Formats: sequence, C-alpha cells, structure tokens
Amino acid sequence: MLYEINEKALKLENEGKKIIRLNLGDPDLATPPEIVEAAYASMKAGKTKYSSSYGELKLRQKIAEAHGVQAENVVITPGSKWGIFATMFLMLKDSGNVIIPTPYWTAYDLIAKSLAAKTKLLKTELEDEWKVDLDKLEKLIDKNTRMIILNNPNNPTSKVMDAETLDGIVELANKKGITILSDEVYATIAFTKTKSILDYDKDCKHILSNGFSKTFTMTGWRIGYIIASKMLVDKITKLNQITINNVPVFIQDAALKGLELHAKIASGIKAKYKLRANMASTKLSAAGFKFSKPDAPFYVFPKLEGLDGEKFTLDLLDKGVAVAPGTSFGDYREHFRISLTAPDDQIEIGLDKICEAAAK
Amino acid sequence: MLYEINEKALKLENEGKKIIRLNLGDPDLATPPEIVEAAYASMKAGKTKYSSSYGELKLRQKIAEAHGVQAENVVITPGSKWGIFATMFLMLKDSGNVIIPTPYWTAYDLIAKSLAAKTKLLKTELEDEWKVDLDKLEKLIDKNTRMIILNNPNNPTSKVMDAETLDGIVELANKKGITILSDEVYATIAFTKTKSILDYDKDCKHILSNGFSKTFTMTGWRIGYIIASKMLVDKITKLNQITINNVPVFIQDAALKGLELHAKIASGIKAKYKLRANMASTKLSAAGFKFSKPDAPFYVFPKLEGLDGEKFTLDLLDKGVAVAPGTSFGDYREHFRISLTAPDDQIEIGLDKICEAAAK
Repeated sequence: MLYEINEKALKLENEGKKIIRLNLGDPDLATPPEIVEAAYASMKAGKTKYSSSYGELKLRQKIAEAHGVQAENVVITPGSKWGIFATMFLMLKDSGNVIIPTPYWTAYDLIAKSLAAKTKLLKTELEDEWKVDLDKLEKLIDKNTRMIILNNPNNPTSKVMDAETLDGIVELANKKGITILSDEVYATIAFTKTKSILDYDKDCKHILSNGFSKTFTMTGWRIGYIIASKMLVDKITKLNQITINNVPVFIQDAALKGLELHAKIASGIKAKYKLRANMASTKLSAAGFKFSKPDAPFYVFPKLEGLDGEKFTLDLLDKGVAVAPGTSFGDYREHFRISLTAPDDQIEIGLDKICEAAAK
Repeated sequence: MLYEINEKALKLENEGKKIIRLNLGDPDLATPPEIVEAAYASMKAGKTKYSSSYGELKLRQKIAEAHGVQAENVVITPGSKWGIFATMFLMLKDSGNVIIPTPYWTAYDLIAKSLAAKTKLLKTELEDEWKVDLDKLEKLIDKNTRMIILNNPNNPTSKVMDAETLDGIVELANKKGITILSDEVYATIAFTKTKSILDYDKDCKHILSNGFSKTFTMTGWRIGYIIASKMLVDKITKLNQITINNVPVFIQDAALKGLELHAKIASGIKAKYKLRANMASTKLSAAGFKFSKPDAPFYVFPKLEGLDGEKFTLDLLDKGVAVAPGTSFGDYREHFRISLTAPDDQIEIGLDKICEAAAK
C-alpha cells in the first residue's frame, strides 16, 4: 500500500490540495552545492564516456579505506537498491530462499518475488525492542537458505540492532554457512554507534550494502555500493556489464567529493534529524503512542493499540497528511511509519494532525 | 574476446604504449555543451530527488511524439542495455527461448545466458548481403519461442535491413504470435532510411529499444528508452522500482535538451561519420577486404578469406591498433570489427596499419 498512498497523495496535490508528505524517505534538504559543482566540473572535463562496470578505482579506494577493506571488494552500483537486487539475483538461483526479519523495507520482498525466490519472514515486536529471536531464526533455516537480510539501522523502526543479537546472528550464519546481506544505508548518520557486518568480517564473507542517498542527500543521483568477496564483486560487475554498464563517472566524482566532505556533511545532517526525532518523540509520547525512540534519522514507527493502520492512513490523507501504513512493512496493522523528511514547520503541523486524529 | 582485448589494450596503455583504440563503440566526440549545461541547470534547480520509475512525463511525451506513439508506451531506462535486459528478464521466464540473427551484439546472448534462457542463433553472411533467410527463421521457431531480437542498423555490420526482409520477419512474427524486440539505437544517425518496427505497429505489440548514447554522444550518461505496450511498460516500471528506481532527473533533462536540438546535433554527427566511413571503405577495398558498405556510423566488419581474426586482432594490438575479432559477434572467424570512433588522424593511421598487417 506504500506506493498506492504515494500515488493518491500525488493525485490530491495535482487537484490543488496541500499535502504534508511524511510518507517517503526522500529528504527535504538539498544536495550540498559542493557535490553539484563537482559533478559539473567532471562533466565539463569530458567524464561522459563509457567506463568500468566495477566503478572508478579512485572512488572504490576511498570507500575501501573508509570501511577498512580492499578496493577489489568494492563495486559501485546505481543506488544501493540495484546492489541488493544484483546480489539476490546472483545468490538466490536454484530454489534458494532468504530469511528477512520484519518489519522490513518492502523492496527486499518484492525483489525476492520477482526472482521467484521464497522468503521466510521473521517477525520482531516493539514490545521486545524489535529484537531478533535467535532460536526462531535457527528454526527458519533449512538446506535451501542462502541469505539473511539485515537492515541496520532499520527502516521503518530506526532501531539499531544491539551488539549481542548481531553477534548471535553472525555466529549462527557462520555455523550454518549462510551469507548475511547487511543493508547499512542509515548507519553513517545514526545517532548511536552501529556495529557493521564488516566488524566481524574483514575478509568479506558477508555482504555490506550502502549508498550515498541518505548521508549526502543524493537520493535522485542513484549511487551506492556493495562490499563483498572479490568473487561476488566480479560477478556483480559481470551483471553490471550486461545491464547498467556503469554509473556515470561525473556522478561518481560527485560522490567522491561527498566522501571528502563527509565529516562536515554528515554531522550537519545528523544534528538536523536529531532535533526532528526529539520533537516527534515528545509529541507522540504525549499523545499515547508507543514506539522505540529512533536511533537513526528519517523514521518513527508508532503503534496504537486497536488501531487499523490502513484506515488511519487513508483518513489522515484526507486531512492533508501522508504517512505509510504499518502493513507495508509486514504484519503490523496497529503501526504506521512517519518520515521526518519534510521541512520542520510541516513536520510539526503533520505531527499535531496525527496526534489529533489518533485522539478521536 | 571483446572484453579481453579491451583489458589488454588498457594494460598496454598503462605500460606507456600508444594504442589506437578502434575496438569499442564509444565516440571520440564530446557531449554537446548545451546538453552538459542543461544537466547543470537542472541539478542546481534541485532536480536531485527520487522520481518516477516511468521516467519524467515531459521526456516521455517528447519521445512519444518523435515516434508517433503515446507517452504511456514509453519508459525511460538507464541506457538501452537496461531496457533490453528488463524486457528479456520479463519475457523469457518459464523456459522461453529467443531467436537472434548473427552477427549480433554480444550483450543479447550474455543477457539470455544470465537468465538461463535458450538462444537460437540464425547466421547471416556477407555474401548474402547479411540477409535473414525467412525459411530458416521459420524453422527455428518452436512453441517456446517468445522473442526475436533485431538490431537495425546492425552492430557490427552497420547494415540497414532491407524493407522486404523486415516485412517478411514482421509478418512471420505476427502469424506465430512472437514479439520482436527491435534495437534501433543506430537508426537516427543512419546514412540511409531505416524502417522502424513502429512503422508496422503503432499499437506497440512489438518492442522498440533506443538510447541517447550514439545520437547525442552521451554513452557514459546511461539513458535510453523502451517503447512497448502499456502493459509491458508498466511491468518494466515495476522492475525499475525494485532495481534502478529512476534515471536521475537532471540526466533526463539533459536528454530532453538533446531532443530539442536533435536535427542540428544528429546531422553534424552523421556528416562526420559519413566521411570516416568513406575513408575506411576506400582504404579497405584497396587492400582487398570484403565488406558491406556501412549504412550507419561507427562500424565496419571486413572479411579476408583465410584470416584467423583472433590471431590477427592480437597481432594488430602488438602493432598498436585495437580492433574486435569477428568471433565476438558469432561464428565469424574471418572477420573483425573496426570502430570509427577515434579522432580522424588516428583512424587513418589505424586503417593503414590494418591494411599493412593484412598484406603480409
């Protein structure tokens, strides 16, 4: 229903209605001007030709350095979503299945379905602080299980996985010979320290997916990367050769500029979102919503007992506020997701309308 | 061996050797500055957000207008290669097979293999003016044949398919209920009039693949499009949603600028390549090569009786000229492909070395 709500919001806007858009993770902030200028300089310098399907070596080296791996373990992708698709496409052949804890980012499941791969969902609950139950995880694993997808910090809960649980998952995956695909696209701008899958595994047996969208407000630029074994990186590159070929070099140069300015840009973005998360927490608590306090920017995933999240979302849209129903992220009818990615004053009005609607 | 040659050429260049690169279809010309400026203006205007997986409506409308179809029949892709992959991914499920006349662009076959789809190759010969034999084509069709891929004008021969043969293929495909995927990426800059698959089929039962790379010297920008039935366009869009999401809007704005300047840009490019093709034809004829005179820019695919094209290509590389062996395009050991995409003076030296090497 995530996309339906978005289409309906767009339709209402086209009819002239003002909609406060808290339904997508697309930041209201602009791409930093230094990044735009870097892209322009690169285009003018003629970086507009076919290029390596691995990505530019300079960018791969810079990313490798930041993560403490080798450049040969890095492949550049047009958005982290493409990296995730490519990985699943290559690893889930021959009736492989994938385990995905919920709530989850919808794309994982849609990608698996497009590949006719079986998904096994592992439900986590707000009441357990969204913890993955290791016994339940072990029971889900069978001989065709090829992959476990973790999203850490999580979309929609903005929860960072506690180190002990992550330790347990990695240990179990290693014991069973299953690859973890760790989507850490919100990690760099998390409010609390996030343990990376690479902290366990500098040899890159497991897979890290990351992107520039969230950290550098570059959503529409479509650039991300996969860190994995050289063998998988080579396979993804071969898939790139017959699909997307390469990410435009001027976009890679723009991302490189982002990495150079990383500390400055990321801390500014983090501070802004921290204020928003605090405001949301205060208002939602006062209105009686239950939720885990965000460990990372962008999302809150509140719950109200007895709520029909889909009806609530639709009614709220009529009142001019778009959010995403919990059912878009798994079996979470009493939840909905708020994206704190609109201008501050709009978020405040939106939150007030949400609290008001819930009080009825 | 196409990619091996390229890697070897790069290696030799890194060792300080001067290589004349006639092995890839990447034009030496720069992207026209108006297109670069349009991208920059768009970025600065904040067109850096997530956007529609169909592509921007304005661009779709402009493309639809140029081809005499509706905007709902157009989907924007990151390069025409992605459009071809997406189409084959969606249409070759469930043991479908695809018929591909040779010589062919290697990517078709590699894509089919990545999807575990069966390919049926239909060989055409220089001596028959590269004509597809309709009887042979009909015999290749079986109950699992889902698609025929045409590349018109053809890479590597630069031959435009004669109207009568194309009429026959379309008639046969219609009779048997098989979809034609017509890759017409060289059509706009062809020297002779090319009949489009859309000339038969304004309802878009068949599929047109096209891109901006060749016409507007935008190879590294990665933008192309598919024209197809609304149903297939919707399916490709759904696949876009879970893979590449969208082509950056500023790149779409750049392509739109290209279309606006189309007549001016395309005629300039065509004139330049026509001169190169004439020079190549004169030199190659004099040296005793057989080939069909190029109907379109970029490539010549000469043959020399008794030639071992792979050995010839490797020896030539040692002499400082990179071309592509005929075996990269099917069963064509006596052929090799020359790309006329280097500066004029380099092409001239390259051709002289080729003729000299063949004389030995």
